[in-house]
Amino acid sequence: MTDDAIFTIGALHERVEAIFRKAGVNATQAGAIARVITAGERDACKSHGIYRIEGALRTIKAGKVEPGAVPELEPGSAGAIVKVDAKGGFANPAFELGLPVLAERARSCGIAALVLHDAVHFSALWAEVEALTEIGLAGIAMCPSYATVAPAGGSKPLLGTNPFAFGWPREGRPPYVFDFATSVAARGEIELHRRAGKPLPEGWAIDAEGRPTTDPQAALAGAMLTFGGHKGSAIATMIELLAGVMIGDLTSPEALAQLGTTTLYPAHGELILAFAPQAFAAGRPGNPLMRAETLFEAIMGQGARLPSQRRFTARAASERDGIRLSAMEVEQLDRFLKLGLDAV
Amino acid sequence: MTDDAIFTIGALHERVEAIFRKAGVNATQAGAIARVITAGERDACKSHGIYRIEGALRTIKAGKVEPGAVPELEPGSAGAIVKVDAKGGFANPAFELGLPVLAERARSCGIAALVLHDAVHFSALWAEVEALTEIGLAGIAMCPSYATVAPAGGSKPLLGTNPFAFGWPREGRPPYVFDFATSVAARGEIELHRRAGKPLPEGWAIDAEGRPTTDPQAALAGAMLTFGGHKGSAIATMIELLAGVMIGDLTSPEALAQLGTTTLYPAHGELILAFAPQAFAAGRPGNPLMRAETLFEAIMGQGARLPSQRRFTARAASERDGIRLSAMEVEQLDRFLKLGLDAV
Repeated sequence: MTDDAIFTIGALHERVEAIFRKAGVNATQAGAIARVITAGERDACKSHGIYRIEGALRTIKAGKVEPGAVPELEPGSAGAIVKVDAKGGFANPAFELGLPVLAERARSCGIAALVLHDAVHFSALWAEVEALTEIGLAGIAMCPSYATVAPAGGSKPLLGTNPFAFGWPREGRPPYVFDFATSVAARGEIELHRRAGKPLPEGWAIDAEGRPTTDPQAALAGAMLTFGGHKGSAIATMIELLAGVMIGDLTSPEALAQLGTTTLYPAHGELILAFAPQAFAAGRPGNPLMRAETLFEAIMGQGARLPSQRRFTARAASERDGIRLSAMEVEQLDRFLKLGLDAV
Repeated sequence: MTDDAIFTIGALHERVEAIFRKAGVNATQAGAIARVITAGERDACKSHGIYRIEGALRTIKAGKVEPGAVPELEPGSAGAIVKVDAKGGFANPAFELGLPVLAERARSCGIAALVLHDAVHFSALWAEVEALTEIGLAGIAMCPSYATVAPAGGSKPLLGTNPFAFGWPREGRPPYVFDFATSVAARGEIELHRRAGKPLPEGWAIDAEGRPTTDPQAALAGAMLTFGGHKGSAIATMIELLAGVMIGDLTSPEALAQLGTTTLYPAHGELILAFAPQAFAAGRPGNPLMRAETLFEAIMGQGARLPSQRRFTARAASERDGIRLSAMEVEQLDRFLKLGLDAV
């Protein structure tokens, strides 16, 4: 039995990257994937840390992602749109390729959009909006998923958990960032209730007949509900339209139909909007970054938290003390590294 | 006593326009205001119809809006940003001035933003996103308000009711449009509960000490809550940042401090994003407008409604049968027209 182990951020990154290389993933993708998985673990965001490796490997093994894909910038798009074709590979290297071009367009146009096409997606969007804030931009990111959520007033899975993320840059401290599913809960949380034999809170889900249920098993056979009733349902629908239909990528029902299962990661597109605050504020009184601090102080002055604060606290601890993994987690990483795709 | 009366849409528009002209509002503003107020009444959206006239007149009388302002396009903004200075007048003519330029930029850049500065705001945002859909664009509109809503985990008014609206064009039928407050309820709904002596639903508001309350009076002295808990609070905060701080206009707490009351309409800015679906979809399989119809059919096929359907049904009836106003409403219009600002 291995003991608990402490990894530096760099050492964990190397381990994760090596696992994906062993699984036949090219260097471009493996590096980008390792960055987001390590960032999740670093921020104690366990649902998007090394937990994601197994599903990614199973998706590779099932032939549902291109391990050799090299994303490409698409030429000739309209002035404020940047398009990257992920070529059926993971979304992360496609985002990394597009980011500097998006930043340049946002600075020259004031606002710009990055579109990722044909990308297999498993990572949280906060990493992407944070990357924008690190270069002084505000950003919004959104993408479909696969159909597991019923629209308000409906009875069947149609929408995805469709995450919506926003970031605002702050000088000398972590950015203002939020990133949430537009479903009440993540599908994984329902699965956790099922394993624990615990009923779901009211309002999370409906059964296969469209009736409200607190039974996790019935919920998994039925559909999840959106957060905030018809308002959350409207936002989830907007995400299908903007980040699916409009960009010419799959909607959540199409992604599920193509994948045929909810146990692998789906392929679809993603839409990221970047705003240059200085371009918007030009000629107006006040510095937008300083004015934002006044708003944040007023929120925290009431005893309310800013979103992502827990993540940033965990990050500071990881940077200082390293990342602790359990013996079981270390064994699993060792097994992935040794066996590659035979481990899943 | 006057009887109920039926107005054609054109006749009601003329009446409302004449009321604002009588109140000293210039032709540019009066026409644009009459268009949105008549549209609200036409769509049986009574909260944004002629009900809004009195508050607008009181705001003029209090000297909190410039009745003679002529909005101006600001020169020299970045390529995909259009800025209109409302000059302290109402927001509506500023939007009308910016719309064709926004559309042109969205078509050439793929995405573009319209910023309205220093505008007094009382109208629903659906009219604006609908105007974008009428010319084949998708759009998002958002603005702050004045501080009446507590952030999640907080205890005091800080955020506005901060509306968020989205529109998607449909060929040969009304667009997909939603427009909602990011507060659980509108402030007017709490006032209606107070007048009716009815308790509020749980989760709408907190009292002045930050404790949950169902007492409308205590809620009006305290703060409203956001829809969807911390997720709605995050969206409302995003709107303060993008449509207040970033564009160099007032945030909701600043707008309330400047106005000094919640009984008049506040001055702040607004942000409208326009997307050209054909530019985003270029080179990809499928026509985005047709693919969207597949999504809408799937939603309606479950028995769920699309947002704004009730409004469009009412609109069709108004276009066919005219708009019916009660005797009391007609008398009030007559009084506004006769007395101008002396009526309020």
